[in-house]
Amino acid sequence: MIVRTLDEITDTDADIKEPNWRSKRILLAKDGVGFSVHETTLYAGTVNDFWYANHIEAVFVFEGEGEVENKATGEVHQLRPGTIYVLNDHDKHQVRPKTDMKTVCVFNPPVTGREVHDENGVYPLITEND
Amino acid sequence: MIVRTLDEITDTDADIKEPNWRSKRILLAKDGVGFSVHETTLYAGTVNDFWYANHIEAVFVFEGEGEVENKATGEVHQLRPGTIYVLNDHDKHQVRPKTDMKTVCVFNPPVTGREVHDENGVYPLITEND
Repeated sequence: MIVRTLDEITDTDADIKEPNWRSKRILLAKDGVGFSVHETTLYAGTVNDFWYANHIEAVFVFEGEGEVENKATGEVHQLRPGTIYVLNDHDKHQVRPKTDMKTVCVFNPPVTGREVHDENGVYPLITEND
Repeated sequence: MIVRTLDEITDTDADIKEPNWRSKRILLAKDGVGFSVHETTLYAGTVNDFWYANHIEAVFVFEGEGEVENKATGEVHQLRPGTIYVLNDHDKHQVRPKTDMKTVCVFNPPVTGREVHDENGVYPLITEND
């Protein structure tokens, strides 16, 4: 059994701080469970273009409000506690939090923690054997 | 892109109500993302023996407090918002919420929604082809 707290992750290498968001990676590829789990806060008033060409991501909102736009269709969905959005088709999307928005994110395949967003906002595919 | 809310799931077949807990299955095997996601409330004062012989489960607590005991070792871990526990070794465990405790649960392989706990508290392994 693995037990971890966000407090343990704060200010470690698994605590990624960007101007628009902060993501604490709680479970990573090295944990060997087939997915990764991150707790991510997106800051109020930011505009975030994301695209995961190599990963499926599910995002569950548990605090705060905002909206997500599917950039292929222009469709906008409201986000509030209890909403999930899933990039099951590697959808290019824009997330616009109205307030600070706290989410739990699940990635398949699991993120290793060594990915960085490239110029297209894409996480490259890295496996634990790389 | 899939977008769902807990409100849409309330009182459907994906809203499982038990005396000790209530689980809303937001993402299931049929969604084809390789994991399932449930929002589960465990009720204050209950004692819950769980064992997933066929699944790995990660549980992120976002509201409420309690504790989880690893039944193999007797070790007890405190649970509060921001704690995750992971049954990565199919660990038999007992969950004891002190208050109503809200969690996001991720299962691999994904739950189909047709599983029921058998007499050992086990979810059988069911795939979408069964």
